[in-house]
Amino acid sequence: MPADLRPLAVSLGEPAGIGPDLAVHVWQARLANRGLCPRYVVVGDAETLRARAHLLQIDLSLKVLAAEDSTHQPDLLLADDEDPSLLVVDCPLEASVTLGEASVQTAQSVIDSLETALDLTRRNATRGLVTLPIQKRVLLEIGFPYPGHTNWLEARLDAEALMLFVSQELKVAPVTVHLPLSKVGEALAADTIISAAKILHAGLQQDFGVASPKIAIAALNPHAGEGGSFGGEEQEVIAPAVAAMNEQGIPAVGPLPADTLFHEEARRSYDAVLAMYHDQALIPLKTLDFWSGCQISLGLPIVRTSPDHGTAFSLAGKGTARPESFIAALNLANAVAQTRAVR
Amino acid sequence: MPADLRPLAVSLGEPAGIGPDLAVHVWQARLANRGLCPRYVVVGDAETLRARAHLLQIDLSLKVLAAEDSTHQPDLLLADDEDPSLLVVDCPLEASVTLGEASVQTAQSVIDSLETALDLTRRNATRGLVTLPIQKRVLLEIGFPYPGHTNWLEARLDAEALMLFVSQELKVAPVTVHLPLSKVGEALAADTIISAAKILHAGLQQDFGVASPKIAIAALNPHAGEGGSFGGEEQEVIAPAVAAMNEQGIPAVGPLPADTLFHEEARRSYDAVLAMYHDQALIPLKTLDFWSGCQISLGLPIVRTSPDHGTAFSLAGKGTARPESFIAALNLANAVAQTRAVR
Repeated sequence: MPADLRPLAVSLGEPAGIGPDLAVHVWQARLANRGLCPRYVVVGDAETLRARAHLLQIDLSLKVLAAEDSTHQPDLLLADDEDPSLLVVDCPLEASVTLGEASVQTAQSVIDSLETALDLTRRNATRGLVTLPIQKRVLLEIGFPYPGHTNWLEARLDAEALMLFVSQELKVAPVTVHLPLSKVGEALAADTIISAAKILHAGLQQDFGVASPKIAIAALNPHAGEGGSFGGEEQEVIAPAVAAMNEQGIPAVGPLPADTLFHEEARRSYDAVLAMYHDQALIPLKTLDFWSGCQISLGLPIVRTSPDHGTAFSLAGKGTARPESFIAALNLANAVAQTRAVR
Repeated sequence: MPADLRPLAVSLGEPAGIGPDLAVHVWQARLANRGLCPRYVVVGDAETLRARAHLLQIDLSLKVLAAEDSTHQPDLLLADDEDPSLLVVDCPLEASVTLGEASVQTAQSVIDSLETALDLTRRNATRGLVTLPIQKRVLLEIGFPYPGHTNWLEARLDAEALMLFVSQELKVAPVTVHLPLSKVGEALAADTIISAAKILHAGLQQDFGVASPKIAIAALNPHAGEGGSFGGEEQEVIAPAVAAMNEQGIPAVGPLPADTLFHEEARRSYDAVLAMYHDQALIPLKTLDFWSGCQISLGLPIVRTSPDHGTAFSLAGKGTARPESFIAALNLANAVAQTRAVR
């Protein structure tokens, strides 16, 4: 198979946050060490990248393409990997950026950069999409009705996605995400859990090349409810869901008490965990590896990953934002694109 | 200060579980390595210990005392550390033990062993109490009205206790314990949180010798509720509780998002975490160190620790029960007794 010369698309996200810092910092680091991460094209405001590189005293050469040109002539993206220039598909901002302050004035170009980056990826001009963090509130204010990237992608691609958090030690996907803890129990339905397990199972096969994925299903309550003494969701919802999965050819074990599910020996018994809520997934993941975790949206026709942090406004322009999660997201997108290509 | 020659009291707990395995196995290991853990006297059925040692092919010599003799002549417990015999304060069972099956027939002697071990410790005949696991259901059936050791000790000692889980990497105390997850939010009250923080603060000083304890208070909801978007307990209950603690001279920070609270760098910023629920405390503790964590009851006039596992019926008599948590509980009780003694 010839080498795939297409880059990854990186959507720049919120220009007042650390996204531009990471885009220029990691590119510079990659010039010194090509093995750090795969080549990428940034889709976003070229001027923001130039200004951020200047602020961080990074000597950066940009090769700027108009969005129309990049979509109509995808070969323009197949740049020589010896070229040190960072390729940018330009989505100019309508207003200037104040570091650390998201603005409604720049929100439309953030959306434009998302749509352009997705468009390039759908057209196979790029190998996958890596999204730098957005600030949801300002996008919502100008009518972008999605609580996050994942929901936007589900709508655009007419697919059901599952967020899988990935680190060297652990893969874990939460069935529910941004809910108050007290609402998690009532939000769990057998159908939802089964559907998530199916996406996880297919994703482990398709994106991670695991022929026969082993999935562990976390319980919700302490001691998995201890026979109903501390909550009934295990008996009423999760256990029936696990039984149904197994009947439908999705091998899974559970519900398993969450506190004993994430230690080193336990981790050897499965490929991934399906967790019932946000912190149940992210406490173990971030406890084991705070800096280098990242996220992938399973279930989509395109490859999409992202770092697992937010805009970190207080660090924007300071040069102190840690790049590990973004680098992990780039490498994961690359690995998944390769795995999909050989199937 | 002369060496304290008193042993720790170990209540044998459920005879059909792994408690007797651990009591004889660790004693044998200690004979080969006195530095493994401090000397202890087992309070429980001598015959069970003898039979378990035989089953596990452990060559064990017992020195058996009647409960009355040990309470009236505490000097009998000050055995020579060169004596290889395991000292037992006998609490004979009324019925024989079937491995792996808790029985109402033996429940009274389990309670007797608890009461005797506590009595010895209250009389200062032992340096502290280490409790091996009990099976709550059979004790409840014969009228022992406590859901666990901690509540029994609170009643006996007329004190309010807080369970602190301890490993090399982390100390964490949950404000709520055996509740369905959906009931945690409504169970949290500012008074409860403040009261727990006070016990934790005093315990870190008195039992761990931390002059100025730094306490981190976990949030309940994902992203600490993100300004009320995913739950209101942070703004309504936890933040006011933290403010009140600080006014009352208990330095604490929070509520802090739980997923970013337990990684290595974060752990350096505090001495202990006050968690809002069982799994929020035990997921990070057991993820980091599954085998060697243990528990201490803070807030009691006596020193009391325990392993953080249960009766593990399926392992009873097999010789495969891991002893690390029991050894950690013995060493922690010893260290805390020393810390209390020099204050």
